[in-house]
Amino acid sequence: MTDWIKQLGTIEPLHQETAEQTKQHVDQLTKPLGSLGRLETLAVELAAMTKEAFPVTSPPGVIVFAADHGVAREGVSAYPQEVTAQMLLNLTQGGAGINVFARQIGALQKFVDVGVAAEVDAPGVCKRRIRAGSGNILREAAMTREEAERSIQVGIEAAHEIVGEGAKVLIVGEVGIGNTTASSAILAALTGADPDEIVGRGTGLTDEGWQRKKAVVREALALHRPDAADPLDVLSKVGGLEIGAMAGAILGAASRRVPVLLDGFIATVAALLAVRIAPAAADYLIAGHRSQEPGHAYVLKTLAKEPLLDLQLRLGEGSGAALAFPLVEAASRMVREMATFASAGVSNR
Amino acid sequence: MTDWIKQLGTIEPLHQETAEQTKQHVDQLTKPLGSLGRLETLAVELAAMTKEAFPVTSPPGVIVFAADHGVAREGVSAYPQEVTAQMLLNLTQGGAGINVFARQIGALQKFVDVGVAAEVDAPGVCKRRIRAGSGNILREAAMTREEAERSIQVGIEAAHEIVGEGAKVLIVGEVGIGNTTASSAILAALTGADPDEIVGRGTGLTDEGWQRKKAVVREALALHRPDAADPLDVLSKVGGLEIGAMAGAILGAASRRVPVLLDGFIATVAALLAVRIAPAAADYLIAGHRSQEPGHAYVLKTLAKEPLLDLQLRLGEGSGAALAFPLVEAASRMVREMATFASAGVSNR
Repeated sequence: MTDWIKQLGTIEPLHQETAEQTKQHVDQLTKPLGSLGRLETLAVELAAMTKEAFPVTSPPGVIVFAADHGVAREGVSAYPQEVTAQMLLNLTQGGAGINVFARQIGALQKFVDVGVAAEVDAPGVCKRRIRAGSGNILREAAMTREEAERSIQVGIEAAHEIVGEGAKVLIVGEVGIGNTTASSAILAALTGADPDEIVGRGTGLTDEGWQRKKAVVREALALHRPDAADPLDVLSKVGGLEIGAMAGAILGAASRRVPVLLDGFIATVAALLAVRIAPAAADYLIAGHRSQEPGHAYVLKTLAKEPLLDLQLRLGEGSGAALAFPLVEAASRMVREMATFASAGVSNR
Repeated sequence: MTDWIKQLGTIEPLHQETAEQTKQHVDQLTKPLGSLGRLETLAVELAAMTKEAFPVTSPPGVIVFAADHGVAREGVSAYPQEVTAQMLLNLTQGGAGINVFARQIGALQKFVDVGVAAEVDAPGVCKRRIRAGSGNILREAAMTREEAERSIQVGIEAAHEIVGEGAKVLIVGEVGIGNTTASSAILAALTGADPDEIVGRGTGLTDEGWQRKKAVVREALALHRPDAADPLDVLSKVGGLEIGAMAGAILGAASRRVPVLLDGFIATVAALLAVRIAPAAADYLIAGHRSQEPGHAYVLKTLAKEPLLDLQLRLGEGSGAALAFPLVEAASRMVREMATFASAGVSNR
């Protein structure tokens, strides 16, 4: 048994008894039965995950993992590779989209360098560099199996740290030029999906770039033949360092009964990786939004998750999850703060 | 010209120049072009409404109007009429759904009695009682034309007050047993919609109650023959006091360039009334969510508004709008707080 698996510990099943207790309470609140729709089912899910009948969801914790991708040099992104490091710096200075939305929801924030090509020396960067970017999957494996395991371990540790600091819900995000290509390759490898169906334009490719990206994914899969039954093999051959770390963080949160609010395509592919490593992790996932990236709908369906928002977002960084968080917080507050028919003296039919 | 029209003043058209300025700024922010989807168009809309290139949306203001409906005695609701007064008291005590969500978003809150049958003596009730509930529209007019005008005036004044207290976005909500029946009748009268298409189960009617409700709407329309071209005629014959007040509040906010974030069916029907009174008000409306009430989709389509959320909500009180508010706030913060490519030193391709 490797270190990271030992460190993870057990992921407990949902606590149905607590869920039932919350459901009964929600049905006594001063509102027509079921009239808060998805918020009511969300509250019950939170109770089952946290084993708290009156679940607390604040503060949330946001971890953004950054890494580079050798495949970026194949013209699969609208942006040059240097943008990963520049965006990591922007994150530490509070100017990125996720920073703005994380501040709005009062989130704890952590920025982890798991393998940016050019090292960023700035206060606020948590350095857990495994290597200076992954290999170009069109020619070589993204990383060794040992590096893939380490990326997961970095994620588990980061999640355990932020939970230790008080985070009640985890949001994982990423920056990494080229990472929708790696995510598409992982998704195709794990599910057998056709790249034509799931490869999108990422940050904004031209038609020509989009065709090239599909070809790159197809060729990388043909070259490496990753084993769908072995998620570590998939991650090491066609994945990315920040994607492994995100999967690890999701496992880490689940192992502490902390709900994970998913962002878009890349985060949800990382969640699928996590679920293939430890199926019980699936119970701790809440889909934040449906992104414009075509593969996102596919992976949400694979995980059987219905998103809270559908606002044509495709920024990544964890931003869509942060935007969905107020709904999770509202579900929690509904349970904890609304009056019951009895307490308010309101006639219940 | 009646008093309330004089008091309203002019509703200015959208300010396209400011909108263009905001759009140009949004396109310079450190994110792929258009990657924040609906949030970006929302930010531009807010700029056009407020005439502020960096629009501020907090604190929002929530006004809940309460009134009773004579038609409630026809078995058109799952709850007895006394619940209106009980819920108004619950509102002042902070235990209703809207209170919880309004606190979460830091909203100013105002609760206005425009005509609850049993007067509620509690601190926090703003008394603007026009009459002790509307008439039973199956037998008589809901109110006189003069009362309808006064209900609108009450709404305008309440909106101007809360804007004066600092509200930057207005949310209007209601409590009023029987008010989905009145709203359905107003909607059918204004648009010619078939009651079968737009009458829903409200707070949770049985099949039998639902059939009765459809028949009541149809009979009320046949009895009063409200004039579709005269919104005051429609409001007085088949409307409700709180619906008139909501329409007035929407007009009042629009006259101060304050965006209105719409809740569900009843609030959106009130918005349609407002737009029929003053078409320029349409420019100040943002649809918060799509409710489960079938008439809501119809009236949203009539107003050509696409909602932010779709979470099977049907509580009313302004709750769905309050739940959508963090997205409006996020759009505002995006414009005001995100770094630009130039300021952050990030390569823009």
